[in-house]
Amino acid sequence: MALIVQKYGGTSVGDAERIKRVARRIVDSAAAGNQVCVVVSAMGDTTDDLFALAEQITSTPHGREMDMLLTAGERISMALLSMAIIALGREAVSFTGSQAGIITDTSHGRARIVEVKARRVKEAIEEGRIAIVAGFQGVSTDLDVTTLGRGGSDTTAVALAAALGADVCEIYTDVEGVFTADPRVVAEAKKLHAVSYEEMLELSASGAKVLMLRSVEFARNHRVRIHVRSSFTLDDGTWVTEEDERMEQAIISGIAHDTSEARVTIYDLPDSPGVAARVFRPLADEGVNVDWIVQNFSEEGRTDISFTLPKEDIRRAEPVLASIVDNVGAAGVRTDPDIAKVSLIGAGMKTHPGVAASMFDALAEAGINIEVISTSSIRVSCVIRAFEVERAVKAIHDKFSLSDEVVFREEHPDTVTGQLRAIRGDGGLS
Amino acid sequence: MALIVQKYGGTSVGDAERIKRVARRIVDSAAAGNQVCVVVSAMGDTTDDLFALAEQITSTPHGREMDMLLTAGERISMALLSMAIIALGREAVSFTGSQAGIITDTSHGRARIVEVKARRVKEAIEEGRIAIVAGFQGVSTDLDVTTLGRGGSDTTAVALAAALGADVCEIYTDVEGVFTADPRVVAEAKKLHAVSYEEMLELSASGAKVLMLRSVEFARNHRVRIHVRSSFTLDDGTWVTEEDERMEQAIISGIAHDTSEARVTIYDLPDSPGVAARVFRPLADEGVNVDWIVQNFSEEGRTDISFTLPKEDIRRAEPVLASIVDNVGAAGVRTDPDIAKVSLIGAGMKTHPGVAASMFDALAEAGINIEVISTSSIRVSCVIRAFEVERAVKAIHDKFSLSDEVVFREEHPDTVTGQLRAIRGDGGLS
Repeated sequence: MALIVQKYGGTSVGDAERIKRVARRIVDSAAAGNQVCVVVSAMGDTTDDLFALAEQITSTPHGREMDMLLTAGERISMALLSMAIIALGREAVSFTGSQAGIITDTSHGRARIVEVKARRVKEAIEEGRIAIVAGFQGVSTDLDVTTLGRGGSDTTAVALAAALGADVCEIYTDVEGVFTADPRVVAEAKKLHAVSYEEMLELSASGAKVLMLRSVEFARNHRVRIHVRSSFTLDDGTWVTEEDERMEQAIISGIAHDTSEARVTIYDLPDSPGVAARVFRPLADEGVNVDWIVQNFSEEGRTDISFTLPKEDIRRAEPVLASIVDNVGAAGVRTDPDIAKVSLIGAGMKTHPGVAASMFDALAEAGINIEVISTSSIRVSCVIRAFEVERAVKAIHDKFSLSDEVVFREEHPDTVTGQLRAIRGDGGLS
Repeated sequence: MALIVQKYGGTSVGDAERIKRVARRIVDSAAAGNQVCVVVSAMGDTTDDLFALAEQITSTPHGREMDMLLTAGERISMALLSMAIIALGREAVSFTGSQAGIITDTSHGRARIVEVKARRVKEAIEEGRIAIVAGFQGVSTDLDVTTLGRGGSDTTAVALAAALGADVCEIYTDVEGVFTADPRVVAEAKKLHAVSYEEMLELSASGAKVLMLRSVEFARNHRVRIHVRSSFTLDDGTWVTEEDERMEQAIISGIAHDTSEARVTIYDLPDSPGVAARVFRPLADEGVNVDWIVQNFSEEGRTDISFTLPKEDIRRAEPVLASIVDNVGAAGVRTDPDIAKVSLIGAGMKTHPGVAASMFDALAEAGINIEVISTSSIRVSCVIRAFEVERAVKAIHDKFSLSDEVVFREEHPDTVTGQLRAIRGDGGLS
């Protein structure tokens, strides 16, 4: 008998019919002899609708009250799902984040889980009931209701799987798994059988939306095996596991892209100790989420620093940037929102030095200019113009022959962007 | 400095604009130097919408999960209201029923409050913040979320007012107070300045919808002063208080009517000890809410028993009634859904024996047949045909001259039915 944690996203429980279908699937899992704990998101657009309601009240909603508001969403979906399971003749019981013992810090809107006290969930499962837990939410050490931020339900599921010692954490979504590239951009993109935690971390950090970065970090730290799969089919999806568990060693896992960020460059600032701190401390204090930071070597005592940040943080960052320029004695600052990041990811590239060169070749052959380059041991990323991003992804996908067959792929109807990686390492490396 | 508990119903917080208006009103109360605790219902039709969602999942929703679902409604309204107050520059903090310490028994869907542990609410108020509490909900002694049933928010408000030792419990609604009759039926109905707890109990039990019966019982038992008033005007509404607090002693408080019940008569059953128990015990066990019971004197060893029950309980009651007829050896049973109850209520009638006769006169003069009569020390009620109910209310209102002037009254747009009573006792008693 296995203990399975299943997570269903908002699209999977978008209306009553879908909830009933998910309930049937859960009941089947239990009937097969498994203990089942389910984490559920709010139905469809509920969270967006609640945001819009708050916007009608005030443009600066209070953090604690916003969390109180948003947590109504999962309350509705989990109660309905629990009812649907009971109507199928199985015992089920729903738990809020608080009842499920998801203890967080006090950062409203982006709380971090500090502990999981899953006693009630554990008891329910041991009594043969199906536990339905609200994703995305917890209770703070101050006893206030908190939310975990976008993608928080994935994190809830992984954290519960770790606390319960689950055999697997199944993440159900509206795509069939992790792909070698976004299937809406590259029609030949292939579904992958497995990726390592490290590859999935880089994929998520580089724009893949199938799994949120924090849930992957959590899974890696607690060695939780994740199975990303579609709630609309019974097919196997993609496993996210330890590297040595994988069947094959891939060189390239896939290509991710991201057009949600803007580039900021601060020009001609002194190249001396402490300057970087004086740039990034004020931004951090303002809560601006800086992603990449690139500073090139210079010999003249002056340098430029570039970094990227989410477009929605630009307005908040601008006054801070102006005062930073004054404070460090820079010549100026420029913000460019029309950029895209393209990233090539694969654990195998650590031992294959030609990978970056092949990627640059592919972009050169497509006539696409590279503006900034950043790499990690298993990732190469470039900033390019946003309007060229689809051509760039296709060119790199071709260069590395990530598809060996042309797969017919339907257009994905909803919000989630597919993502990417190839399980084969024989393709086109220079 | 007074401590005020204010309760706002669903219509008062039906959309973002109304929530902002209510927030302004609450801030004004606080700015006038009062400590304010607010109890709020779900927005508009939210609760009905959630019921409908559950109906799409299953026709027999599980009680615990239904309560989990429904409590999402107040969570949304209370968070929005709290945000709106904070946006006006005052500190506010929202509490679920559980956080506010509303401890109930474990009867899902119709839980009773067993204790109020208002520590967090009290602390918030003492720190100068406005406490916003979810109406209608609590947490059971088993730590599960419960709801209090229809009108439960009134009960929450009164219970909190008792626990906090509030000076007054203001019930805001979409009518201006308690009236001598439903203003939609009798255009000349007058708003009353005050009614006693006992009168309000009889009014609520007889069909008045301004205040739910249980909240009035709670108020009487804990001597909580209630002020029923409109959230759309600043006018004084109706006070519900101890009898001796009232300015004037009324003979007749008002007329209530109710078309939500059906009459059941069991014919020709043995007039012997234990028969009534054998009729009503099985109904109680089935959860059927029997209201009036009338059994007339008989000399022949056989009798009939009539009673009323909510129309929505008929389907549940019918198989039980069939087995009761067999069990007690009755000749048969008949259920009639087309009835109305009309009730005349007034504490003063205890010492004025002619009141009932005048009421029967009024109905006789209008040509309306009386089918069943039931009385208490401060109430006379008749069952009549449903289609005659408006004429009956008008005839009785005229007979007792409950209006001394014709008041222009707008049609009330929404769901709440106005209610009724006259502060004068000089009219038309025989």
